[in-house]
Amino acid sequence: MKLLEDKILTDGQVYPGGVLKVGSFLNHQIDVPFVNELGKEFYRLYKDEGVNKILTIEASGIGIACLVAQNFNVPVVFAKKNQTKNIAGEVYTSKVVSFTHGREYDIIVSKEFLGPDDKVLIIDDFLANGSALQGLIKLVEDSGAKLAGCGIVIEKGFQPGGDMIRKTGVRVESLAIIDDMTDDGQITFRS
Amino acid sequence: MKLLEDKILTDGQVYPGGVLKVGSFLNHQIDVPFVNELGKEFYRLYKDEGVNKILTIEASGIGIACLVAQNFNVPVVFAKKNQTKNIAGEVYTSKVVSFTHGREYDIIVSKEFLGPDDKVLIIDDFLANGSALQGLIKLVEDSGAKLAGCGIVIEKGFQPGGDMIRKTGVRVESLAIIDDMTDDGQITFRS
Repeated sequence: MKLLEDKILTDGQVYPGGVLKVGSFLNHQIDVPFVNELGKEFYRLYKDEGVNKILTIEASGIGIACLVAQNFNVPVVFAKKNQTKNIAGEVYTSKVVSFTHGREYDIIVSKEFLGPDDKVLIIDDFLANGSALQGLIKLVEDSGAKLAGCGIVIEKGFQPGGDMIRKTGVRVESLAIIDDMTDDGQITFRS
Repeated sequence: MKLLEDKILTDGQVYPGGVLKVGSFLNHQIDVPFVNELGKEFYRLYKDEGVNKILTIEASGIGIACLVAQNFNVPVVFAKKNQTKNIAGEVYTSKVVSFTHGREYDIIVSKEFLGPDDKVLIIDDFLANGSALQGLIKLVEDSGAKLAGCGIVIEKGFQPGGDMIRKTGVRVESLAIIDDMTDDGQITFRS
């Protein structure tokens, strides 16, 4: 999506080691009018899939997911991290490894809010190693819901998550795929 | 706001000790079309205040803040919790006490995203003891930004936060104020 690629080139900041900071418009400050345009694009891609629920993960996915959801006129459910107080049996749970923070954590969704009658679109801001997305997909599978697919704002195509998940047959639509980032800040998008 | 009071009575769950669960529409599952109506009401209340930025706190404030922000056509900034990796000087920081979880934590906002040119509306889902809201107000003050006021979805009027903050001269608009909740589930709203 050219609008997003241009925004990444203008406002994103590249740091050595494949780090892209987009806190000025996506995950610390949220440029709401801009993200609304992303929401329309996700709607265009998934509007015929019968989506009745958007699933994301706290925290940075939530705003994007809400702005996407209003196009579908459906609710958002966000998976919570590190909620150990919940009694087993009340929640679906899966494990996510954060490579950025070097730790493993649990994500949970209450069984009240995901079930066999749902057709779910998963939305997240980033896809890199794919652990968070795999965790969300497992929550959908465990609940018996159907998965329409995944909508990702920025995929790091030089990391394995996207390819790995597509190989399992899951539809993954990323609005920008970065194939290369050099330490001096050059970004190459997949065409 | 009658729409919200009705929703709380229909879908909220009261637990002993003044606990109100609204996870079915506000802070685990988000009823996006419904929250959009709350967003319009916050806009009606604050539209003449020159608001150019919405500030909230992760995680459950983010979705609501984004749905509010699109009425104002302005960005959202969300304060992050427990980010200890940030170098002093790059962020505004304040301390928040969570009575629910019985602990204290830091919240931070990057100095890039809040400053003297901003007129800020703070949005959050709940106001009870007021610690989170006080923390957010301090971030605004430290940044030199002006504060238009605070927009709260549900205020627990039987806890001291709302009165305490209004006494400092800050405008606080809560769409529903609960003056009493009994252990058997009766809810009394302030009229």
